[in-house]
Amino acid sequence: MSVTSTRATPAGPRPAQRGDGPERRFTLSALADCGRVMTDTQFHAWLGEMGRREASHVERIAFKELDQWSFDDATGNLGHDSGRFFTVEGVTAHTGSPAHGVWRQPVIHQPEIGILGILVKEFDGVLHCLMQVKMEPGNINRLQLSPTVQATRSNFTTVHRGKTPLYLDHFTRPGGSTVLVDVLQSEQGSWFFHKRNRNMVVEVTGDLPVHEGFCWLTLGQLRRLLAVPDLVNMDSRSVLSCIRFTEPYGLGDLPGATALQAALRRSLAPGDAGALHTTVSLASRINDTRLRHPLTARRLPLAEVPDWHRSADEIAREDGRFFRIVAVSVHSGNREVSSWTQPLLEPNGVGVVAFLARRIDGVLHVLLRTTVEPGCRDTAELGPTVQANPHDRLASDPPDEDPPYLRYVLDAPRERIHYDVVQSEEGGRFHHARNRYVVVEVDDAFPAEVPPDFQWATLGQLMELHQHNGYVNMQARSLVACMHSLW
Amino acid sequence: MSVTSTRATPAGPRPAQRGDGPERRFTLSALADCGRVMTDTQFHAWLGEMGRREASHVERIAFKELDQWSFDDATGNLGHDSGRFFTVEGVTAHTGSPAHGVWRQPVIHQPEIGILGILVKEFDGVLHCLMQVKMEPGNINRLQLSPTVQATRSNFTTVHRGKTPLYLDHFTRPGGSTVLVDVLQSEQGSWFFHKRNRNMVVEVTGDLPVHEGFCWLTLGQLRRLLAVPDLVNMDSRSVLSCIRFTEPYGLGDLPGATALQAALRRSLAPGDAGALHTTVSLASRINDTRLRHPLTARRLPLAEVPDWHRSADEIAREDGRFFRIVAVSVHSGNREVSSWTQPLLEPNGVGVVAFLARRIDGVLHVLLRTTVEPGCRDTAELGPTVQANPHDRLASDPPDEDPPYLRYVLDAPRERIHYDVVQSEEGGRFHHARNRYVVVEVDDAFPAEVPPDFQWATLGQLMELHQHNGYVNMQARSLVACMHSLW
Repeated sequence: MSVTSTRATPAGPRPAQRGDGPERRFTLSALADCGRVMTDTQFHAWLGEMGRREASHVERIAFKELDQWSFDDATGNLGHDSGRFFTVEGVTAHTGSPAHGVWRQPVIHQPEIGILGILVKEFDGVLHCLMQVKMEPGNINRLQLSPTVQATRSNFTTVHRGKTPLYLDHFTRPGGSTVLVDVLQSEQGSWFFHKRNRNMVVEVTGDLPVHEGFCWLTLGQLRRLLAVPDLVNMDSRSVLSCIRFTEPYGLGDLPGATALQAALRRSLAPGDAGALHTTVSLASRINDTRLRHPLTARRLPLAEVPDWHRSADEIAREDGRFFRIVAVSVHSGNREVSSWTQPLLEPNGVGVVAFLARRIDGVLHVLLRTTVEPGCRDTAELGPTVQANPHDRLASDPPDEDPPYLRYVLDAPRERIHYDVVQSEEGGRFHHARNRYVVVEVDDAFPAEVPPDFQWATLGQLMELHQHNGYVNMQARSLVACMHSLW
Repeated sequence: MSVTSTRATPAGPRPAQRGDGPERRFTLSALADCGRVMTDTQFHAWLGEMGRREASHVERIAFKELDQWSFDDATGNLGHDSGRFFTVEGVTAHTGSPAHGVWRQPVIHQPEIGILGILVKEFDGVLHCLMQVKMEPGNINRLQLSPTVQATRSNFTTVHRGKTPLYLDHFTRPGGSTVLVDVLQSEQGSWFFHKRNRNMVVEVTGDLPVHEGFCWLTLGQLRRLLAVPDLVNMDSRSVLSCIRFTEPYGLGDLPGATALQAALRRSLAPGDAGALHTTVSLASRINDTRLRHPLTARRLPLAEVPDWHRSADEIAREDGRFFRIVAVSVHSGNREVSSWTQPLLEPNGVGVVAFLARRIDGVLHVLLRTTVEPGCRDTAELGPTVQANPHDRLASDPPDEDPPYLRYVLDAPRERIHYDVVQSEEGGRFHHARNRYVVVEVDDAFPAEVPPDFQWATLGQLMELHQHNGYVNMQARSLVACMHSLW
């Protein structure tokens, strides 16, 4: 781990000026050494206090103990009596390519666009994010830092007759506020069918009440918190990944930075500056996959998914691979409704999400893989170099079936690992779903040629692609958010 | 009509330099007064000669005379015996919004991504486009100017056992060539179900044979040809709309330009410079529609579409509105296969596709409308101000049911009409489908407030959005390509 807090340097970045775009204001917030509302120490004390007050109770239950959730007699699908929230169904998918074969598996079907929104506001000229400490039943540590608003459509049409989420109006009726980020982004295509959320950042200027459980943090503070395992939740990372930063000092002037920081900051430059390939060529690879091997995926009754079996308390494969569907009951004090039951998807152990990184002419590049997943709305997105779960391997698997480059990550010498933190996936749908997020820098012995589904890109190019729907998958976006803690 | 050819001026744009991005090279080609390979006069002579040699014959036939096309007994769908190309089916669509209601109508279903590709190459330092004079059965004038390659997936998997389209390899295996544009774009959402094409521009450097029917033209020449009705075909306009130009002279220096040209050139500036709204806020409006009123659309057996009836030679509504499905037989000399029969969709008369335009602080803006159509893959895209077919009106319709702003277009005084040319839609699927493409500049009396589904945008913002999938519909993109003939 080499996460270094960014310190103000004598020749620091120039202050914000009238007419600066949001990129520059976000960057200055990311470089802000301490919060104007709350110091890091105060935040951790406050978080500890919230943890001590947190009194929720989550326990595994049998499916028959689920309240208002039931299996459909005909299809075997698991759904809510209201027909809303989500269902657990099957999916069958193929691309026509023998390399991909035919998938059939359970999947979470939630055909709605939710809102993941962060409110930002200037204090002393520095943008701060309104973050929420939120309990989710699937969180391993119960409380994590979520966006200001994390709402499904059911939430704001109040299907569950609970309270409307706080601050929601700022995203659904921005009015006098300014929308700085608004992009539909996918979630995990191996667990969700066509799921998307609207990732938003909205700036407010007037007074705003800060409700219990909320706090104002700079992007610099959030960057430091990304070094803490299981704290900044998946939805926060997704929204943070859609924020665009700029190279803060100008290319020739990197005071006090290490060589790695310099290479990272050069990598933030917008567009194709310093990049090995053009952004068009990155997108071209996805389009090529969509044209040659278009994904055909359709929902399948859960009862018709082969190799998966339902017992009294789980839906799982006999060989135990991939994940299982379980049920929990939840008693909580700080949610819209105070107790409920629900299904959750529980993967096997801790997965690996990793970028191999490389300095090319002094600019850090990461290696992306064109990734096809059954729940992807448009065949393929760009994913991280490695997205794998070593626990899914069987002892009988031959070692050459390791995902490409996984050994580079697992066997990396300590000094080449720049980021290595376990982060959680969404605790409202997944039970204890965690990945080890890793950035490993390869050395010059690494082969220059990579297989055709891999491509090198700068962070500037990724930030550009993150402004639009359908380019970069959740895992890669999440890891980019983590990488922002390094410059 | 006030299309003016752009002349070189004493203080012309600076010549291309090493390191210039493709935007600048495209712009210089657009400003090139004459082609290095062929003058405009030579082009028109050559086109005339091609027309005289053109010997194709297209005639309307009854459905029973279709060869290898037939109606499915169970569904009534019209399809090819191979299961490929396309089918004519029904669609049922609703958004949950009472304003939209439920649509049921026939639609062309072609679940493939085709390629629309233009090869470009420098002659004397100026980029030229390799264009093809191509016969399509639905073209009112038979021959139009199409991209280098216009290929369905069936084409390049050679389902119809014909020849592989010329130059296709440059797009499917670019190898040493450079991909300058590569973006999936939608086609008409009222006629196609989820249809998309991969719009590409690929630069070649080596020698390239020019086959019969192909010619090299600068973007400047193509701009002038956009003043000719029914010549630059829809697919060409779609690809041309994905090319990004830059403001050619710098904002302070517009030699010899009219006030309108100056306002248009300022409108080309990249990003949000000079724009009334941010690009994020344009996209935000689409996302808002997707979230609030998501479109649910599914295929429906054609036989189950109410109000549409099949006779011996057409599928049409009793009131004659919208369009009809017809069949034709084609005898041709210059296609991959020399004779065939096929269905075509024939709309009613000539439609209207129009932008209202307005100078805001000296920068020309056009008025976009968030447009929901049943065949749209993702609920909504930004469309032109007006997209309507006056022939679809019934005498009994009350006048206040005119589409918004249609009267501004139809009643515009001549001096406020900057572009007014009838252009054709795709002749491979549509029979004599034509629209009057119009740009009307409104005066200061035009209300500053527009309804919430309308927004002002610059051409620079539109060119930015055209780089990505799912923002702007075919009609608006096509009209932007036409507008490039004005600066």
